[in-house]
Amino acid sequence: MAVDYSLYLITDRHLVGTKDFFDSIAKALEGGVTLLQVREKDISSKEFYDISLKLKKIAHAYNVPLIINDRLDIALAVDADGLHIGQSDLPIDVVRKILGESKILGYSVSTIQEALYGQRMAADYLGAGAVFSTDSKADAGEAIGLEGLKKIVAAVSIPVVGIGGISISNINKVKSTGADGISLISAILSQEDTCKAAKELISLWKK
Amino acid sequence: MAVDYSLYLITDRHLVGTKDFFDSIAKALEGGVTLLQVREKDISSKEFYDISLKLKKIAHAYNVPLIINDRLDIALAVDADGLHIGQSDLPIDVVRKILGESKILGYSVSTIQEALYGQRMAADYLGAGAVFSTDSKADAGEAIGLEGLKKIVAAVSIPVVGIGGISISNINKVKSTGADGISLISAILSQEDTCKAAKELISLWKK
Ligand code: NI
Repeated sequence: MAVDYSLYLITDRHLVGTKDFFDSIAKALEGGVTLLQVREKDISSKEFYDISLKLKKIAHAYNVPLIINDRLDIALAVDADGLHIGQSDLPIDVVRKILGESKILGYSVSTIQEALYGQRMAADYLGAGAVFSTDSKADAGEAIGLEGLKKIVAAVSIPVVGIGGISISNINKVKSTGADGISLISAILSQEDTCKAAKELISLWKK
Repeated sequence: MAVDYSLYLITDRHLVGTKDFFDSIAKALEGGVTLLQVREKDISSKEFYDISLKLKKIAHAYNVPLIINDRLDIALAVDADGLHIGQSDLPIDVVRKILGESKILGYSVSTIQEALYGQRMAADYLGAGAVFSTDSKADAGEAIGLEGLKKIVAAVSIPVVGIGGISISNINKVKSTGADGISLISAILSQEDTCKAAKELISLWKK
């Protein structure tokens, strides 16, 4: 399964409002999401497992790889296509050993030092941010800005995805940094029509 | 490493008060704790990993096996001696496959049906409870009572450890059910002298 980092959707079951969670994600995939990450907090392992199994089926129906956030055990249990870890998760070298070489491993960074470390530790891609400041817990810490993203992109040879506060209004600026894709949560999931939102974002990104 | 289920301590970093967490556990091991489970909630994967690595070293210094609660990934990452899962964790069959046959696998049950299922799914031991009603989140749900524990012990051939509300005052009654051990949190960790508390409990249990 080839990896296209262009439009990377991260889940948050609390953001879909009254819409159906799985239906909202299926529609976003239909609209053009190219990569899907299950990122759920305050959830039992059983629920995380059940949701991930269901989303794997949905993602694969659209030929989109499924990545699990943080939880190596869930990634192994559902045989996901990859795992995304951050600075507060298990050490990347320990994770790579247990996950195996064939799975996609993503790593969250906000500095060039972290980016170079991730690349050295065999991350397949980096999630760099927060690009813009946001309230979302997914991308806490001070914003690195477009300049910070640009520097990280320039520092490594692996794909870099921008994350944090990215939307229709700033997508062109993010593209100009040379990043390989954009990672979004609310810019898709909070929208009334997640298919339309994904369609607009991917067409702007690919323009 | 032979497993002695007699005095099974479950951690909770929020219960040690002003005492040092690691010191309190080391002293409890010195007092006679025979099995140690790391059970920490609301914690990052990195912190869980760091705590578990440290407790593994401490437990092994006392020749006591280290069990991880819920998180299969942490158990794999620190190469723990085993994993304990409950009804809200990953499915036991999935866990056993990934964990391997050589590791200790514990399973929380409160009914005979769950106990028989756990035994059939190759659990090494069962944690049965809550024996007595308690406020601790570790053993939520209605109490099964001494009768409930006795029935579970009689129904399976693998070791059964009683959990929930067990203390000096009721230890003899729990012993009379035929259980292989007692699982405790606050009856040890909340005590001023965790060494003395463990010593009293194990001597009462072994009497
Ligand atoms: Ni949320």
